[in-house]
Amino acid sequence: MPRQLYELAAQADDHVFSPYCWRIRLALAHKGLDFESVPWRMTEKERLAFSGSERVPVLVDGHTTVVDSWEILNYLEQTYPEQPLGLGRAEVRFVRHWTEMVLHPGLSRMIVDEVFQTIHEKDRAYFRESREKLFGVPLEEFAANKEVKLEEFRRALSPLRATLEAHDFLGGSAPNVSDYLVFSGLMWARCTAPTPVLAPDDPVSRWRESMLDLYEGMARRAPCREAA
Amino acid sequence: MPRQLYELAAQADDHVFSPYCWRIRLALAHKGLDFESVPWRMTEKERLAFSGSERVPVLVDGHTTVVDSWEILNYLEQTYPEQPLGLGRAEVRFVRHWTEMVLHPGLSRMIVDEVFQTIHEKDRAYFRESREKLFGVPLEEFAANKEVKLEEFRRALSPLRATLEAHDFLGGSAPNVSDYLVFSGLMWARCTAPTPVLAPDDPVSRWRESMLDLYEGMARRAPCREAA
Repeated sequence: MPRQLYELAAQADDHVFSPYCWRIRLALAHKGLDFESVPWRMTEKERLAFSGSERVPVLVDGHTTVVDSWEILNYLEQTYPEQPLGLGRAEVRFVRHWTEMVLHPGLSRMIVDEVFQTIHEKDRAYFRESREKLFGVPLEEFAANKEVKLEEFRRALSPLRATLEAHDFLGGSAPNVSDYLVFSGLMWARCTAPTPVLAPDDPVSRWRESMLDLYEGMARRAPCREAA
Repeated sequence: MPRQLYELAAQADDHVFSPYCWRIRLALAHKGLDFESVPWRMTEKERLAFSGSERVPVLVDGHTTVVDSWEILNYLEQTYPEQPLGLGRAEVRFVRHWTEMVLHPGLSRMIVDEVFQTIHEKDRAYFRESREKLFGVPLEEFAANKEVKLEEFRRALSPLRATLEAHDFLGGSAPNVSDYLVFSGLMWARCTAPTPVLAPDDPVSRWRESMLDLYEGMARRAPCREAA
């Protein structure tokens, strides 16, 4: 029975853009574990009913089903302890929460309209309605003033930038789960938004290039909307 | 020859408030190393001439003089490897830069007028002039609108808060250098500002209480201006 990862896909089955799915893809590659990607769309809740979750990623590993990206990471670390991801330390959790509470929201308010353009046609009405309810304004309004937000976003990366000026990776000399968590946020932008969010001379860009190269260019080869 | 730590002091010699000095105090206590505090004021540059630095902390350990708080932490870790601080990992550096680039500035724009009230009389003209040059506005203006800033500050603590909801310390089950870095920022506020910056029911407060208790209440017993 092959290992299966249910992932959010855009119009094309292999166009995977969710940061929560990307962190699992990268963790599986880190541990050298093969998997079959099962494309899934937001409006296909019933296809996940077996898992008890309404969201991806969902990992089916033999007879074990695991939901929630953080749970999946911990499951992988415990089940396949070789090539450790570096999970378990509180500082890694700090990186996780910074990613989810600073990086993701900073991106969301710039790219949500492009995410809308990226997703499968059949998800669009659901996406617009649920997000506009959450934000309290139309998607396009929520994503307005991109220039101002881009400056704020780049400023908010300052602790990451200073760290990557001193270390090749957040894992030190080699990537670990901290790198996958943060980089997956940037993959969300790369896979959905035509305009790059990093300046080319940003040390964060240099690191992103290294991350794109990992595992035979796995992330670089993935479908994206970012202009070359 | 006793180990000496040159520290920024307020009017009273034992009223130490600099976050960069506090992180060294705590690291020394962590390693069980005694030291003699040498009170120093901002306008006493000539007293540090021997070190080549114009700022504290300066550590004199036998025949070795070390300047810069990050250098001192690394010196202590290398020289006294027992009871490791947990330095060396890139994620710890991320916590350091978050502390210096998010926590400290968030506090500074609320408490700089109280810092001015705290410092030694002879430092006040220098402090006002140098800071007003840096900020481009009078201290009191830079520190205005505290209510709005307090909300923003507490919101900016969200990654720290979420981490401390899952772990007792940033070091996990026991404190490490990540705890000392962040907590020392909060000690800066406690030692200078009468109004507490944390809500009592904030999980960050619970952690701060634990940190205040460490090493026989070393931080709790230190002179402070925070209202009880």
